[in-house]
Amino acid sequence: MNTYGKQFRITTFGESHGVGLGVIIDGCPAGLVIDIDFIQSELARRRPGQSAIVTQRKEGDEVEIMSGIFEGKATGTPIAMIIRNKDQRSRDYSHIVDKYRPSHADFTYDQKYGFRDYRGGGRSSARETVARVAAGAIAKQFLKQQGIHITAWVQQVGSLKVEQSYHDLDFTQIEQNPVRCADPKMAIEMEKLIRAVRKDGDTIGGCVGAVIQGVPAGLGEPVFDKLHAELAKAMMSINAAKGFEYGSGFDGAMMRGSAHNDRFVTDEAGEIVTKTNFSGGIQGGISNGMDIYFRVAFKPVATIIPDQETVDKEGKATTIKGKGRHDPCVLPRAVPIVEAMAALVITDFSLRQLASRI
Amino acid sequence: MNTYGKQFRITTFGESHGVGLGVIIDGCPAGLVIDIDFIQSELARRRPGQSAIVTQRKEGDEVEIMSGIFEGKATGTPIAMIIRNKDQRSRDYSHIVDKYRPSHADFTYDQKYGFRDYRGGGRSSARETVARVAAGAIAKQFLKQQGIHITAWVQQVGSLKVEQSYHDLDFTQIEQNPVRCADPKMAIEMEKLIRAVRKDGDTIGGCVGAVIQGVPAGLGEPVFDKLHAELAKAMMSINAAKGFEYGSGFDGAMMRGSAHNDRFVTDEAGEIVTKTNFSGGIQGGISNGMDIYFRVAFKPVATIIPDQETVDKEGKATTIKGKGRHDPCVLPRAVPIVEAMAALVITDFSLRQLASRI
Amino acid sequence: MNTYGKQFRITTFGESHGVGLGVIIDGCPAGLVIDIDFIQSELARRRPGQSAIVTQRKEGDEVEIMSGIFEGKATGTPIAMIIRNKDQRSRDYSHIVDKYRPSHADFTYDQKYGFRDYRGGGRSSARETVARVAAGAIAKQFLKQQGIHITAWVQQVGSLKVEQSYHDLDFTQIEQNPVRCADPKMAIEMEKLIRAVRKDGDTIGGCVGAVIQGVPAGLGEPVFDKLHAELAKAMMSINAAKGFEYGSGFDGAMMRGSAHNDRFVTDEAGEIVTKTNFSGGIQGGISNGMDIYFRVAFKPVATIIPDQETVDKEGKATTIKGKGRHDPCVLPRAVPIVEAMAALVITDFSLRQLASRI
Amino acid sequence: MNTYGKQFRITTFGESHGVGLGVIIDGCPAGLVIDIDFIQSELARRRPGQSAIVTQRKEGDEVEIMSGIFEGKATGTPIAMIIRNKDQRSRDYSHIVDKYRPSHADFTYDQKYGFRDYRGGGRSSARETVARVAAGAIAKQFLKQQGIHITAWVQQVGSLKVEQSYHDLDFTQIEQNPVRCADPKMAIEMEKLIRAVRKDGDTIGGCVGAVIQGVPAGLGEPVFDKLHAELAKAMMSINAAKGFEYGSGFDGAMMRGSAHNDRFVTDEAGEIVTKTNFSGGIQGGISNGMDIYFRVAFKPVATIIPDQETVDKEGKATTIKGKGRHDPCVLPRAVPIVEAMAALVITDFSLRQLASRI
Repeated sequence: MNTYGKQFRITTFGESHGVGLGVIIDGCPAGLVIDIDFIQSELARRRPGQSAIVTQRKEGDEVEIMSGIFEGKATGTPIAMIIRNKDQRSRDYSHIVDKYRPSHADFTYDQKYGFRDYRGGGRSSARETVARVAAGAIAKQFLKQQGIHITAWVQQVGSLKVEQSYHDLDFTQIEQNPVRCADPKMAIEMEKLIRAVRKDGDTIGGCVGAVIQGVPAGLGEPVFDKLHAELAKAMMSINAAKGFEYGSGFDGAMMRGSAHNDRFVTDEAGEIVTKTNFSGGIQGGISNGMDIYFRVAFKPVATIIPDQETVDKEGKATTIKGKGRHDPCVLPRAVPIVEAMAALVITDFSLRQLASRI
Repeated sequence: MNTYGKQFRITTFGESHGVGLGVIIDGCPAGLVIDIDFIQSELARRRPGQSAIVTQRKEGDEVEIMSGIFEGKATGTPIAMIIRNKDQRSRDYSHIVDKYRPSHADFTYDQKYGFRDYRGGGRSSARETVARVAAGAIAKQFLKQQGIHITAWVQQVGSLKVEQSYHDLDFTQIEQNPVRCADPKMAIEMEKLIRAVRKDGDTIGGCVGAVIQGVPAGLGEPVFDKLHAELAKAMMSINAAKGFEYGSGFDGAMMRGSAHNDRFVTDEAGEIVTKTNFSGGIQGGISNGMDIYFRVAFKPVATIIPDQETVDKEGKATTIKGKGRHDPCVLPRAVPIVEAMAALVITDFSLRQLASRI
Repeated sequence: MNTYGKQFRITTFGESHGVGLGVIIDGCPAGLVIDIDFIQSELARRRPGQSAIVTQRKEGDEVEIMSGIFEGKATGTPIAMIIRNKDQRSRDYSHIVDKYRPSHADFTYDQKYGFRDYRGGGRSSARETVARVAAGAIAKQFLKQQGIHITAWVQQVGSLKVEQSYHDLDFTQIEQNPVRCADPKMAIEMEKLIRAVRKDGDTIGGCVGAVIQGVPAGLGEPVFDKLHAELAKAMMSINAAKGFEYGSGFDGAMMRGSAHNDRFVTDEAGEIVTKTNFSGGIQGGISNGMDIYFRVAFKPVATIIPDQETVDKEGKATTIKGKGRHDPCVLPRAVPIVEAMAALVITDFSLRQLASRI
Repeated sequence: MNTYGKQFRITTFGESHGVGLGVIIDGCPAGLVIDIDFIQSELARRRPGQSAIVTQRKEGDEVEIMSGIFEGKATGTPIAMIIRNKDQRSRDYSHIVDKYRPSHADFTYDQKYGFRDYRGGGRSSARETVARVAAGAIAKQFLKQQGIHITAWVQQVGSLKVEQSYHDLDFTQIEQNPVRCADPKMAIEMEKLIRAVRKDGDTIGGCVGAVIQGVPAGLGEPVFDKLHAELAKAMMSINAAKGFEYGSGFDGAMMRGSAHNDRFVTDEAGEIVTKTNFSGGIQGGISNGMDIYFRVAFKPVATIIPDQETVDKEGKATTIKGKGRHDPCVLPRAVPIVEAMAALVITDFSLRQLASRI
């Protein structure tokens, strides 16, 4: 099931080293003005080779619109976008074709499907997220019209962690440094750490923080499709994600109700708001109009340079030799992916909401 | 959308103080032998009033099977189960009908639907989970046949936290104490804390730990419906959930790839296993045959006894007076709900897997 | 998969001789005023024993609302309705438990599920449609608010066929005769035929005609979910249905384009309409504002009184003895079912349309 | 919603005169050997210009596989196929951009979406079916392995109708004549009629007959997703379809139960079969192992050469001048489309069946 969303549905396809990747968006409202340059600029934020601290693989990531847009606007019919793989030189995969790379999906794909496309991880490669970012770029254009903005940043690399609340961060700093950290001083520390890790041929994990602002009250569904439950699924579906929390999160587990409860008050504009926001903008699975904020943990990338012991298909002990270009830290490139998935979730709920009452 | 699952689908209905609650299971394989007493015993684990540290509301929670079971076996057609509300005495709700209780779903339901069933929270009440536990009890019977077992326990209450790995816990202890903590000494501390919190008319949060054992390699889907992404959604859809992590989780963000990667080895039985299990039994969204373990954070329940300031529908400042019976700590009763949701996820993926290859 | 609809979704459950039947409606817009007496009156139109020419089984068919309606209005959460089986006397089924009744679903259920609930056909019984009619009665209340009306009638019994266009029929006549034929003279002939057939212990087929008026232009989906394709599925899902046609239907296959094309003109009110309506109110799968009309063919009911030769589970030749109360002609009772399914389709598309453009 | 199927799901995209068309198949079982030449040969059967009696538009219809096939086999991940539009010369559409062609979807698309891609009908063009035929060609390869074969032919053109039962037809004749009629003598008459109609610049309708052989007993779902209900939807979703019947169909409405009931007998191989097959191979929505046969009615194509009166967007009377290349009779090219849709339905049910019992 390679489809996500109920009303604004995306279906992605493609493998890391196949012909290309792509996405169909079904359910984009007719009449939405689509800026194709914006899609391309979002892809550039995810692209390998964009800075010295990410993988130096070359992927052009040029999007071709196949359908669904006419005279600059969504027609209401499926929008198909394809991104061809450029860096498809016929590499030698003999070193992995029969071996299971530790903490990759080689073994599980073989178990599930009986065989696998071993070229660069095939469908399990994070390259699949290029299709999500393309779709998310269209969702963002829809949300912008509704006054909804999504911001994500690198909040943690290894044990280096931005401790301030997002209220105290300057979001304009995020795109000013290669780490995409909202705190410029911490960005320098993080970059140093990533360079050191890369020098070791190693990788390191981290966390992305995100906030969604301008969401009207009333989005989300009461039971299984709670707004934060869908956000959790969407975020955890990103390669290497290990944890999700929103609002007070895991820290909320340590609090008492008398401290955690968010008092309702009326603000100067006469709107009902909450004085605190431990709820993270969501109550009973439905947005309450306050900021929605959350955090996603990512493990270190599994591809490393040092030799690793493992087994082959027959279960015999063997060694995998690391080689090639890899991401020492996936976090900077995860930022636009987190934003894209958040945009898809909110757009879907915005459209689902339209049929919720007479 | 009150339906969960693709192949083993449950649809729940009902409100806290309406006629009753219920669930339809669509897609239960024909021929499954169903033990109705087991369903009832699972409901008893979730039931209010089961111990001194949970709410003393009386809910009989007797399940009536309406359809789908014939001569003790699932027929393959929908299994409908209803649980009537017993404790439906016509209470006076005038104190909340026009007021928004802090951190409840009163305000968001009004915003979404234009009005709401204010009796005991209506559909937003955690009473809805009785239907999930009933459905989960059937899923567990399916899983048992496959040799799959799910165990959950209270791992944290407030800042009291079981620090041992689950390997060092004795699961037979869980049902021996009212907290459902796997560590009997910690259980005593936790119970003391909960009693103190209750005395204050307050509430406290915590975490549930869980492990799924016996899952064969190959379950899960590569992209959006990754096994851990569905687990995340399922867990975050439980009332009061604030965070989810699996395998190395948020701690994994601090690790290096060289330490985090799980080496494949062949065990004595000739099976390919991993030496460590930071992956939490899932690689690339697909089970690898190792234990799947995860943790869910719950906030403190919003219903407290002390007066709270808030606003009414018109946005005017007012006060909510606490009253009635409430759960000082939802964690002990969350344990069977976490298990039920996990059972639904794994059963669904088990059935989905049947069509995955020729 | 016992669910129908995308936005206005119904899930039915229950067997002919089990505890009862029921339906959950998920996606009913909040705020819809629900008249429960109307639901009951629709069930009365489907009920056995309503006239001398239908089965004399006694089914009370009293609906119990379990959830989703509060203070007379839909809350937006699932509406669950159950109808208990009253006529559940413990009959002797030994004559069919091991035999396959000709043209019933006994054999196919056994092949699909490995065994079956043999009591009165179990889930395959047309009794399941009681749940559809209950759900359809709520859909009709939604459509009434939109100015949409659905009318069905018996257009053919055996070879007795109403040849007039629906424009020349007086719909107020339909409920004035037990056949539900819109032509009172033909109704008398049809009733005679049905009585004769019953006397022989036999059954006879026929056709239902239907027209949906007041549908605004723009409902339906371009490709797979064309409005008429969903109507076809909905109608063909009714027990005993064998054929569906809309607009010019099978006769349209004999026409030339120059005659079949519906010219657009502007009417006196300034609305764009078509001069003819061979399109049946649908072009490219989307409503054009004209009347939607269609016809459904039903085979004769399989339950007859004379002995029939067949085989048992082991494939050995045997004889089925007819007994009990049966419908000599299902058409009069099919009328409210056809209307209900049409109401569900149009309601679903009405709600789906809300998200189709900015 | 441009997706069809539950387990074997296709999503199509593209417009008549855009960049191209395509389809994603999600749920194709891993390991299926895929013959790409066969896909191409099926596209050739649908292609314009294949004979003198169909449209002479030139469409190369070369399929490009983008993903999901590795070393000749389906990997279990999405199979994406694209077919670029070759005949995209920048025509002058000024004659239709503001006018509503009679019995086309111009008016309804404008009503639904607010505007439309007017080039060649955009998404409403039957060119969309090229994507279905490509997907169907993969489904056929799956079915062939199961011993299931689908055959369709032109059974009627205008009032020229093949009256024999399909048992008396020689299916090897179908591809021997440009009409795809299974009766060679009738094929000559039909071809004459189509040439005469074309000479008038007119079009004519007809019917396709089809039979599915080798389907095992047990496929289909009991209630809404009855096998014949899905076939009905699938067939009615083909452009220009107006009616569907299976088994005894509309004629069955005239029969008595005693004549219509299909007696079960045991054949020489010891299999339980039915002596007659008025049921059309389906009982209670589930296949019984006998041949499944059905008929689909198509209206005459709406594009004709003579001038036609209509209105423009403002509702003002105007005239459409016919021009260009059109199909005088869509039936010969509808044959592979009917087969493709049938293949998709049966493949989907085959896979759905895998999870139906323990």
